[in-house]
Amino acid sequence: MSQFENVTVIKQANVYYDGKVTSRTVLLPDGSKVTLGIMLPGSYEFGTDQHETMEILAGKLSVLLPGSEEWLHIDGTATFEVPANTRFKLEISTVTDYCCSYS
Amino acid sequence: MSQFENVTVIKQANVYYDGKVTSRTVLLPDGSKVTLGIMLPGSYEFGTDQHETMEILAGKLSVLLPGSEEWLHIDGTATFEVPANTRFKLEISTVTDYCCSYS
Repeated sequence: MSQFENVTVIKQANVYYDGKVTSRTVLLPDGSKVTLGIMLPGSYEFGTDQHETMEILAGKLSVLLPGSEEWLHIDGTATFEVPANTRFKLEISTVTDYCCSYS
Repeated sequence: MSQFENVTVIKQANVYYDGKVTSRTVLLPDGSKVTLGIMLPGSYEFGTDQHETMEILAGKLSVLLPGSEEWLHIDGTATFEVPANTRFKLEISTVTDYCCSYS
C-alpha cells in the first residue's frame, strides 16, 4: 500500500533527538494510528507503550530488539516487531524512512 | 487547524539535502495538496513550480524571498508566500516544522 486514504493527519510533527528522528501521526479510519517518520544517521533508543510494527520503507540500519543479543541488519525494506513496554536500539547508517503501526 | 481530515497521505517521504529536509505529501479532499515537512539546521535553496504558501509551525530561521535583498527572520510561527517558478533561500537555525500549500 503506497498511500493511506480517508485518514486524519496531525499537522504538528513529533520530534525526537534534536530533530534527527521526526514523525507525523496519521489516524486511520478503523481508529488505529500509524506514524510516518524519518531517522537520520545516529544511535537511538526508544521505549514502546504499545506493540509496534516497524516497516522500514528505505534505509540502512541495525536494530537491537528487546531481549536480543544480536543486531538485525537492514538495507532496504524490512519489517520488525517490538513488544509493548520494552526498549529497542537503532543504529541508523543512511536516511531511513519508516511507517510504524501500533496495536 | 491542527489536523487535516478525510485526506490521503503518500507513504513514502520526500527527501532533500541528505535528509536534512524531508516532507510527506497530503492530498486534500478539494484536490489540492500540502506537504508537511521538517528542516534541520543548515542552508538550503529551493525552486518552486507552483505558488507556495509556507506556514512555519515551529522553528527559528531566516528566509530570502525571490527578488528580495533583505532576509526575513522568523522565530516561532509565521507564514510567507513564494511565487511560482522562482527560487528562495533558507537559513535554518533550529529544527523547523512546516506546512507548505500549493496553488
